[in-house]
Amino acid sequence: MDNVAFTADRDGVVIIDQTLLPNDERLITLRTKEEMYEAIYMLRVRGAPAIGIFAAYSLAVLAEKIEGDFVTELQKVADYLNSSRPTAVNLSWALTRMMKAAKADRHSLFAEAEEIRAEDIRMCKAISEHGLTLVKDGDGILTHCNAGPLATSEYGTALGPILLGKKQGMNFRVFADETRPLLQGARLTSYELHKAGVDVTLICDNMASIVMKNGWIDACFVGCDRVAANGDAANKIGTSGVAVLAKHYGIPFYVLGPSSTIDLSCKSGSDIEIELRKPEEIKSDFFAKPTAPSGVKCYNPSFDVTDNALITAIVTEKGVIRPPFDINLQA
Amino acid sequence: MDNVAFTADRDGVVIIDQTLLPNDERLITLRTKEEMYEAIYMLRVRGAPAIGIFAAYSLAVLAEKIEGDFVTELQKVADYLNSSRPTAVNLSWALTRMMKAAKADRHSLFAEAEEIRAEDIRMCKAISEHGLTLVKDGDGILTHCNAGPLATSEYGTALGPILLGKKQGMNFRVFADETRPLLQGARLTSYELHKAGVDVTLICDNMASIVMKNGWIDACFVGCDRVAANGDAANKIGTSGVAVLAKHYGIPFYVLGPSSTIDLSCKSGSDIEIELRKPEEIKSDFFAKPTAPSGVKCYNPSFDVTDNALITAIVTEKGVIRPPFDINLQA
Repeated sequence: MDNVAFTADRDGVVIIDQTLLPNDERLITLRTKEEMYEAIYMLRVRGAPAIGIFAAYSLAVLAEKIEGDFVTELQKVADYLNSSRPTAVNLSWALTRMMKAAKADRHSLFAEAEEIRAEDIRMCKAISEHGLTLVKDGDGILTHCNAGPLATSEYGTALGPILLGKKQGMNFRVFADETRPLLQGARLTSYELHKAGVDVTLICDNMASIVMKNGWIDACFVGCDRVAANGDAANKIGTSGVAVLAKHYGIPFYVLGPSSTIDLSCKSGSDIEIELRKPEEIKSDFFAKPTAPSGVKCYNPSFDVTDNALITAIVTEKGVIRPPFDINLQA
Repeated sequence: MDNVAFTADRDGVVIIDQTLLPNDERLITLRTKEEMYEAIYMLRVRGAPAIGIFAAYSLAVLAEKIEGDFVTELQKVADYLNSSRPTAVNLSWALTRMMKAAKADRHSLFAEAEEIRAEDIRMCKAISEHGLTLVKDGDGILTHCNAGPLATSEYGTALGPILLGKKQGMNFRVFADETRPLLQGARLTSYELHKAGVDVTLICDNMASIVMKNGWIDACFVGCDRVAANGDAANKIGTSGVAVLAKHYGIPFYVLGPSSTIDLSCKSGSDIEIELRKPEEIKSDFFAKPTAPSGVKCYNPSFDVTDNALITAIVTEKGVIRPPFDINLQA
């Protein structure tokens, strides 16, 4: 099934509720802007490209209900959706593109949203092909969080080369970080790869060091939520730690994402806003019982920034971009 | 209360069941060797020094029930307890010492166990004092797993300087890794420090990189389960990753433990057996629902080895030992 689809009469957006995976594969329909905001904030739909596609579909649906000045009112809706999560650039990128289409032709929005998805599928396919040139059959690949089909439209970004390689008869040994606190690696990556018949081993985040030291990892593949002009890359919390480990153990570290994730208006990672989330995600959500005393403080950033110096290459649909990123990303 | 104590009539050993913390502070009494083995394996009692003390108490209790040749039969019991967890040296160290005492005087075992605990208290106090010389008031300290009073007898090792400093009116900002899969950092470290009034912030393991990058950490303090002659140190899984990050961010990394943790018969870390545990600890234990499909493979090492090159100093009751460790640990 598609991750994101219009309802039959285009009055809502249907997604698979990713918070319920892997135990429950449930489709939910979102019709109001509040439901759509909540679906992004709660990570029912997540992954930078998928959020962009979802926001585009949502704006097309909500546009049908606009009263008063069309562009002014629709912009308010777009701004509201855009405030749901600050770090991934794809959200604002898709909404900006939809507003541009709305200004040109208010009846073009469903087609524009479909086109954004179609482009994402083409881009993910190209990213997968470029990424596949960086590994060979039998390689051990470590990935963090989830950048597979659920995070995009098809193929995925970081998981794209693995799934494409599998289709072509290649076998990788994939190690999936569980990715605390929301466990996207356990719940989504291990689920997607296991379903696709890929050899996947789930580890806790803090085991990445030992699997690298064991010599089991030939490359790290991760997605990205926003890449600055100098190549600093924001991605799920913990990505920068994986990159430091990879550098220490001499393992190449690849960041994969569509070129729309590159935000040339951000000079460096310090210009990227990092979303802070609630302590309950660390202390109680997912658990049968609280894991810490209720009074204990938590620090819960949803993303971190990986310094460009730790990145071997950034892979987009246009190809494999190597340092110096400040020059090569512009080109 | 004491972590480990004899029952009133010395027919059992009483411990606080650490698997139930922080939600339930329950004392349990163990009377048979099977119950004692299970308590160690299930981490009802854990922390290298505490396991040693517990094993000594257990052997004293079990010695009272020996039939047949005393030394031969007691050795069988000691070997059985020793097989419960392979990595921490303190377990075999304490049992070997108890067997030596048993051979000299079978009635000395209760006194010997008490003496092992009394020594641990003195050692932890000395470790705390030496460790405190490495930090200053207001410092940010990152710790992994739990090496506090619950892991020892009093004070603790890695948490010892923090608790001793607090008593002396110093205030540290402590960041506690939650320490997956068994969450000793969340359940035990944040619990102990919060109770002691220390400023503690709980983070997921994969957030260590960002708090270091934020400039919040001045030193890392961790415990140890076995230190090889060259300074390679086995400790809770994830410790080596913290050490790599600390090196990358230019932060000193200190390993704290009693000198009995140093095993000169191990030349290097590669001679240390790493305990592998069951997949359920990653995929289902603690959680309200499974976090991954049931068929997904897991790799679940309980410990890893931190290369001596990543360690700034090893702190024992005898002082602060700096590299070259191969020479200075012998001395």
